[in-house]
Amino acid sequence: MSVVAFITDFGTIDWFVGSMKAVVLGIDRGFQFVDITHEVPAGDVEAGAFVLLSSFSVFPPGTVFVAVVDPGVGSQRRALVATGGGYGFVGPDNGLLSLALGRVRNPEVRVLDNPLFVRRQISATFHGRDVFAPAGAHLATYLAKQRPIDPFGPQIDDFQRLPWFEPELAPGRARGLVIYIDRFGNAITNLEASLLAGAKLLQGRASCRGCDSVPLRSYYEQVAEGEPLALIGSSGFMEIAVNRGSAAERFGLGIGDAIEVVSGTETDSA
Amino acid sequence: MSVVAFITDFGTIDWFVGSMKAVVLGIDRGFQFVDITHEVPAGDVEAGAFVLLSSFSVFPPGTVFVAVVDPGVGSQRRALVATGGGYGFVGPDNGLLSLALGRVRNPEVRVLDNPLFVRRQISATFHGRDVFAPAGAHLATYLAKQRPIDPFGPQIDDFQRLPWFEPELAPGRARGLVIYIDRFGNAITNLEASLLAGAKLLQGRASCRGCDSVPLRSYYEQVAEGEPLALIGSSGFMEIAVNRGSAAERFGLGIGDAIEVVSGTETDSA
Amino acid sequence: MSVVAFITDFGTIDWFVGSMKAVVLGIDRGFQFVDITHEVPAGDVEAGAFVLLSSFSVFPPGTVFVAVVDPGVGSQRRALVATGGGYGFVGPDNGLLSLALGRVRNPEVRVLDNPLFVRRQISATFHGRDVFAPAGAHLATYLAKQRPIDPFGPQIDDFQRLPWFEPELAPGRARGLVIYIDRFGNAITNLEASLLAGAKLLQGRASCRGCDSVPLRSYYEQVAEGEPLALIGSSGFMEIAVNRGSAAERFGLGIGDAIEVVSGTETDSA
Repeated sequence: MSVVAFITDFGTIDWFVGSMKAVVLGIDRGFQFVDITHEVPAGDVEAGAFVLLSSFSVFPPGTVFVAVVDPGVGSQRRALVATGGGYGFVGPDNGLLSLALGRVRNPEVRVLDNPLFVRRQISATFHGRDVFAPAGAHLATYLAKQRPIDPFGPQIDDFQRLPWFEPELAPGRARGLVIYIDRFGNAITNLEASLLAGAKLLQGRASCRGCDSVPLRSYYEQVAEGEPLALIGSSGFMEIAVNRGSAAERFGLGIGDAIEVVSGTETDSA
Repeated sequence: MSVVAFITDFGTIDWFVGSMKAVVLGIDRGFQFVDITHEVPAGDVEAGAFVLLSSFSVFPPGTVFVAVVDPGVGSQRRALVATGGGYGFVGPDNGLLSLALGRVRNPEVRVLDNPLFVRRQISATFHGRDVFAPAGAHLATYLAKQRPIDPFGPQIDDFQRLPWFEPELAPGRARGLVIYIDRFGNAITNLEASLLAGAKLLQGRASCRGCDSVPLRSYYEQVAEGEPLALIGSSGFMEIAVNRGSAAERFGLGIGDAIEVVSGTETDSA
Repeated sequence: MSVVAFITDFGTIDWFVGSMKAVVLGIDRGFQFVDITHEVPAGDVEAGAFVLLSSFSVFPPGTVFVAVVDPGVGSQRRALVATGGGYGFVGPDNGLLSLALGRVRNPEVRVLDNPLFVRRQISATFHGRDVFAPAGAHLATYLAKQRPIDPFGPQIDDFQRLPWFEPELAPGRARGLVIYIDRFGNAITNLEASLLAGAKLLQGRASCRGCDSVPLRSYYEQVAEGEPLALIGSSGFMEIAVNRGSAAERFGLGIGDAIEVVSGTETDSA
């Protein structure tokens, strides 16, 4: 049974997600669906891209990710079908797939232009149902049969990429920024464990607007309830957290806010 | 694998939906579940009926829709089992199924009165779990085996129907109303594409309380960000939208509000 | 197909639930997933335990419940694997499983300490993905093959139990408390139908802070719209409700609030 995993901003109040699955099931019944999330903030391509980046590599090979955060639906933006790392990806060419594609070796990216893989009638406003869902179902079948995917359309390399703000490194110091706030109010940064390890900062202290010299620890309960800490989150990125609390609320943190990590255990405020 | 699709107002916070699926799986494991939505506003039969109408026809034949928006649970309202268009429908006799049943040819509607198809113990407050879920599972099995469904109970024709406010047509002019607000704030009306096409209004302009001479376009990005437009939505109904914004919020639109479409490209306010 | 049912406080906004399912599917594809809820209030072990108690017994035998409400993640709290009543249970040793385990005969409870049943790399903050999901997948396989579960780890009896506040009984009178508020605002109490029946209180009247002499009825519509009633809910516990309204809002009811039931049909306020 092939796995089809969804990331959208469609929410779960209306029938949009159900309609996508209906189309997939009209092509084949033998799919295992996983809803990664349908609560990407409406139109927030960056958040959707980060959710995909954070989750895709845990799935078994053969999984197809149908990602739809698509404020340009109906315009001339291209639709993409891609493979890499044993996975399949389907989504609009607006950067949504780009963070994940940047982490697989030699991704094969194609512009979906074969009408055989989409619905006959394509609405102007719901390509999730009419384009991406059927393309995802067909792609899953192609992956399961290990067939080449060139029938989907011409290969390209100029797909749209989101800028990835590289952290700045200086001796004993790294500067990054908040790229995601999760449901618990943890502020996830673009500072990866490997980068901090290379810079010998895994024992460091983090500062942000509103927080100062927060210690890097391994898990929440290493600090008292209500106390802040930094830690390497489950996706491999450093996050600012508060044990049993919300760091985003406590420190007024939002996406794009600067975060600095310095070495040493002494207070060393910026 | 038969598809069982759910529409309820149970929300996803409690265990109600899980309990319904548990009962279905106790009857047979070979089902593919699709949650169309569990976020119908509590007790809002009209909204639930519109969600079913908007989504059912995309599903593959054999799908059974278990719809439960049931403020009269425990009272004497009847339980319905129906087929039509290759689909199965289960739900309370309060109009919830009626909009979809109105779109299939010769629906067969029966009052569920056979205790073999429901749980032995029926609670007074949770017929979703005790009546509709097991009836849906059995109905899916009947459809898969193409067996006649008369064992479920006596056929009826007097099931409760929701009033469907027919749009008013006059030369160069159509009057309808808002019947649904979706998650993006699009105000969906009862003005169908086919009706507007017949009245030569597909190039027209729409007006509402708070909006005036909004152009009918094909997709959101045909107007500038933040600008209003009308368009035929993915379910075939005209909606008032704002590109990358919420029409409901911008114009204070709610269900039941009047919408008028007039022909011509000139401003022609009511 | 084995059923794996989830109860967590992870929400559905981020990728956490999807990651758990990804891990399960990496172990085996042949699972039927049921999301009981992911909206347990963050860290609220008692609410999670009550949701599990209220839902588990409707599932078919062989179902494995993966329950993760785990504020102590990363600390030394133990991970549990248990069986009982034909079901499997996986979760942290913080009381989350205890209400359900208290209702099955001779539960077998083990401390999960076999690294074969968890992910090779265990993050400090996401045992849902790294410990409980893979253990649940393996447990489902063990149950399906009816194999003994001693490979998971040593059997224990001292797992953490939540206090269960036993209602107080006096002639013609029972005192309990609110243990859960559902999405409709029904205030569910720890007064079970069997207890009230034994005390001949099923025809009684209930009182609470803010409500007085509310009649026990069988279903909502037995009182006028907007009127309060008490009834035996679908999980077998008495609840305070308002027909087509919210009892929690109307009477300001919250978890832990006292509820009293007295016999007789006359007003008999406390």
